Amino acid sequence: MGRLKRGLYIGRFQPFHNGHLEAIKYVLENIDELIIAIGSIQDSHEIKNPFTAGERHYMIQSALLEAEIPHDKFYIISIPDIDRNAVWLAHVRTLCPPFEIVYSNNPLVARLTKEYGETAQLSTIPFFNRMQYTATEVRRRILEGENWEDLVPPAVANIIKEINGIKRIRDIDASEGDLF
Amino acid sequence: MGRLKRGLYIGRFQPFHNGHLEAIKYVLENIDELIIAIGSIQDSHEIKNPFTAGERHYMIQSALLEAEIPHDKFYIISIPDIDRNAVWLAHVRTLCPPFEIVYSNNPLVARLTKEYGETAQLSTIPFFNRMQYTATEVRRRILEGENWEDLVPPAVANIIKEINGIKRIRDIDASEGDLF
Amino acid sequence: MGRLKRGLYIGRFQPFHNGHLEAIKYVLENIDELIIAIGSIQDSHEIKNPFTAGERHYMIQSALLEAEIPHDKFYIISIPDIDRNAVWLAHVRTLCPPFEIVYSNNPLVARLTKEYGETAQLSTIPFFNRMQYTATEVRRRILEGENWEDLVPPAVANIIKEINGIKRIRDIDASEGDLF
Amino acid sequence: MGRLKRGLYIGRFQPFHNGHLEAIKYVLENIDELIIAIGSIQDSHEIKNPFTAGERHYMIQSALLEAEIPHDKFYIISIPDIDRNAVWLAHVRTLCPPFEIVYSNNPLVARLTKEYGETAQLSTIPFFNRMQYTATEVRRRILEGENWEDLVPPAVANIIKEINGIKRIRDIDASEGDLF
Amino acid sequence: MGRLKRGLYIGRFQPFHNGHLEAIKYVLENIDELIIAIGSIQDSHEIKNPFTAGERHYMIQSALLEAEIPHDKFYIISIPDIDRNAVWLAHVRTLCPPFEIVYSNNPLVARLTKEYGETAQLSTIPFFNRMQYTATEVRRRILEGENWEDLVPPAVANIIKEINGIKRIRDIDASEGDLF
Amino acid sequence: MGRLKRGLYIGRFQPFHNGHLEAIKYVLENIDELIIAIGSIQDSHEIKNPFTAGERHYMIQSALLEAEIPHDKFYIISIPDIDRNAVWLAHVRTLCPPFEIVYSNNPLVARLTKEYGETAQLSTIPFFNRMQYTATEVRRRILEGENWEDLVPPAVANIIKEINGIKRIRDIDASEGDLF
Repeated sequence: MGRLKRGLYIGRFQPFHNGHLEAIKYVLENIDELIIAIGSIQDSHEIKNPFTAGERHYMIQSALLEAEIPHDKFYIISIPDIDRNAVWLAHVRTLCPPFEIVYSNNPLVARLTKEYGETAQLSTIPFFNRMQYTATEVRRRILEGENWEDLVPPAVANIIKEINGIKRIRDIDASEGDLF
Repeated sequence: MGRLKRGLYIGRFQPFHNGHLEAIKYVLENIDELIIAIGSIQDSHEIKNPFTAGERHYMIQSALLEAEIPHDKFYIISIPDIDRNAVWLAHVRTLCPPFEIVYSNNPLVARLTKEYGETAQLSTIPFFNRMQYTATEVRRRILEGENWEDLVPPAVANIIKEINGIKRIRDIDASEGDLF
Repeated sequence: MGRLKRGLYIGRFQPFHNGHLEAIKYVLENIDELIIAIGSIQDSHEIKNPFTAGERHYMIQSALLEAEIPHDKFYIISIPDIDRNAVWLAHVRTLCPPFEIVYSNNPLVARLTKEYGETAQLSTIPFFNRMQYTATEVRRRILEGENWEDLVPPAVANIIKEINGIKRIRDIDASEGDLF
Repeated sequence: MGRLKRGLYIGRFQPFHNGHLEAIKYVLENIDELIIAIGSIQDSHEIKNPFTAGERHYMIQSALLEAEIPHDKFYIISIPDIDRNAVWLAHVRTLCPPFEIVYSNNPLVARLTKEYGETAQLSTIPFFNRMQYTATEVRRRILEGENWEDLVPPAVANIIKEINGIKRIRDIDASEGDLF
Repeated sequence: MGRLKRGLYIGRFQPFHNGHLEAIKYVLENIDELIIAIGSIQDSHEIKNPFTAGERHYMIQSALLEAEIPHDKFYIISIPDIDRNAVWLAHVRTLCPPFEIVYSNNPLVARLTKEYGETAQLSTIPFFNRMQYTATEVRRRILEGENWEDLVPPAVANIIKEINGIKRIRDIDASEGDLF
Repeated sequence: MGRLKRGLYIGRFQPFHNGHLEAIKYVLENIDELIIAIGSIQDSHEIKNPFTAGERHYMIQSALLEAEIPHDKFYIISIPDIDRNAVWLAHVRTLCPPFEIVYSNNPLVARLTKEYGETAQLSTIPFFNRMQYTATEVRRRILEGENWEDLVPPAVANIIKEINGIKRIRDIDASEGDLF
């Protein structure tokens, strides 16, 4: 089992959209198992972070099974923020099964990987329809009443409705993100 | 005692002003006891948060007794920030006596109350002279040397002077809120 | 108002008992106003800390008003633990109105007061019926089904019953204080 | 999807053993989906907590797939400790998909569920070979060089060997759990 | 030894530059020993905070010894942020040897010193070539490929190169300071 | 400068004693520079941790200079606890200049070094008069009024007296380490 090649893919997934799903499918053609790490799990009910970590886990697992990605190909793991960049990768390692490749287009992630004696390789991911498939665009469309369902997997659209996510995003916006 | 109807009213009170006092008087006509919850107690000596939690508690209790509100009608309670919106209401509940009504005009507070199986009702509060009675306006007038005493109860004006609050607000402004 | 003499009295109050009430009455003969500070507010549902900070605030305020202690004589203030002894007193000062006397029989509190340039005086408090009036004894009697009501003010006994405190103390004991 | 019945089962899983696996199989006969929540994810390399959260996630997912439990029947979710019992269940809710039943034999969990207006039901779980199937016994046998592999699923035994878990448990013991 | 006069000088030192070195030399003409306190030690790999606390300690000690400041004249001490202005000075005191003078041009530091019964005096420091000798200017020049080495002591320039600091500042900038 | 061989030596130093000093002298015969890391800097005024991090820094620097160890041979660095063993070494690295050897007799430190891809070597240190030269023994003798000065460098004995450390240790003991 240790000889399988395992990769890491991290995001906030606010919410999980078709671009994420395409990226995961693409990566799984080149690797045995993928760890999908949900970042900033303490945040929710904020303008940029409307969904709880539990809701995001629920969306991702539902969407991957809906897309018939076999269940022995992925792990979904919650990552609390550590707010200290220099120990971030060590922190992620303690929360995940062993991995050998980090999938990221972020130069700072690349740098941290190099500086801290990381043995993992780094690999970039192609973007899929980058203009539309962003979580910012999904949240904007939900807020303004435009068509957003086409940007996310059907399972995600169902969950957002099940948890009253549309009304939530509007209430957060109306309060400007503050509680008092 | 459990049959009394108790409400919650939360704010930062930086500082407590006449609008807050009017709101409390209004609410107390409709309820037996009111919990006045002081939020963000860790913050002080900042541009938007000049006063410590201790000073704010002192201002509120002095102003309520000065206004002859009987002490068996209110609780004043310090609430440390939890920085996780989805558990915020559960956190507040552990720090207060049981309450049945939340007084708030904030749509996000309303949403959190609905989502988390809260049994408390929500009730809005009329604003009193909303243009002048804001903590932002009080701090602005103090900083610019305009008349601010008319916006706060006399007890609050006395405490701000007793603790050298005017000089403090100017020193914070001069340092732009940073220590180094 | 600054010329009033104000004191500080801190405890965990798990629960508030007759010994605490006698101490407060004694101190109020010698001082204008007393700050009753509730420590360890994050702890509850533990063997040594069964009650939430909110329940303890509720018990103390109810018992003081029941004992007809005038409402302009006391403040009740929640103090989150800081877990760093050397800054503890500075932390307490930021959460309370200004005070000049610390009431404590604890040599470590005395030492911290001396070492950190504290201007407050220290004063000890006589113990009242020290064998029976301890929170440990109240919790032991509740657990073992002995008479505990005589050790606490009537208002406290009522609140413990209102919140199902007896059952809670037994459930905590049965789980040895662990959740999993 | 909201009509599925979902349950919660929480533990530290240090390590995951046959008793855990039997409990999960038993529960899954009565429910549609089960959330397996890993507690105390910040702890590892300690006498009672030798394994990281990542290693525990790896063990559980491998063992469940080895036992041919379908992946659409379970979620595996990391839960950071919150160290405040009274908000613990609200905290867990924010990290998990919605659930309707809590599986636990712990009276304190039962009490918290009742006190905080929880809508979830509580259900107990039978113990399976309670004398042998405990994580404490597995760790003791590893430390003393006795047969421990029979107490855990084969996938877990393999992972413990892959990560040098036997040597780790002995090194932790030799240092009495302290770093300096 | 207690009769020596000791001062405190705090900064983030991102990075340590010639203006800092001149200030330290100036202060050491008027005092026996100086504590150089490194603030915000948890921050690194951020746009305004590219260097770790360890790297900053390394730069400062190397630069002071290079400038032949005798080793019995200074202490270099790491200060984690406390994020509560009102206890900040008490926090700093617990991490440093006793000091009698605080060197700062910041009005908020002056105010905190006055309000909290601090016995330390306050003293300002002249600025040295204030237009060029700022950490912001050093970082800007590194980012834009201009001459920055003249603004820092030679030892600091060497360390920034040794740790690949130039590439790091550009990678942080390219990722806009975010990890995901 | 990067070609120098640098080592790490960590302890709580409650207080710094002759055994620590002998170990440092021994290590400095085999290495160019030594980082002396002070652990648990948040703790003080506790039975096992009577001294603040500032006092410990003061003791160590004074004792090393008294022993005529050149200042370009050592760094003294404060390390806040992180309470997560699996990221501890990554955390220490961010707070120190680069190092190549860890000096420790602790098997858990050795294990963490091996597991986390650490490039540092590990090296043990001989004990010097292990029966007497322990911080526990120093604290015990101070508490019981026996001769303790012979166990510590003269500079440390002077500082303990300057800060009233003897009285402090007795007051902590009398309060059993609790504040309330």
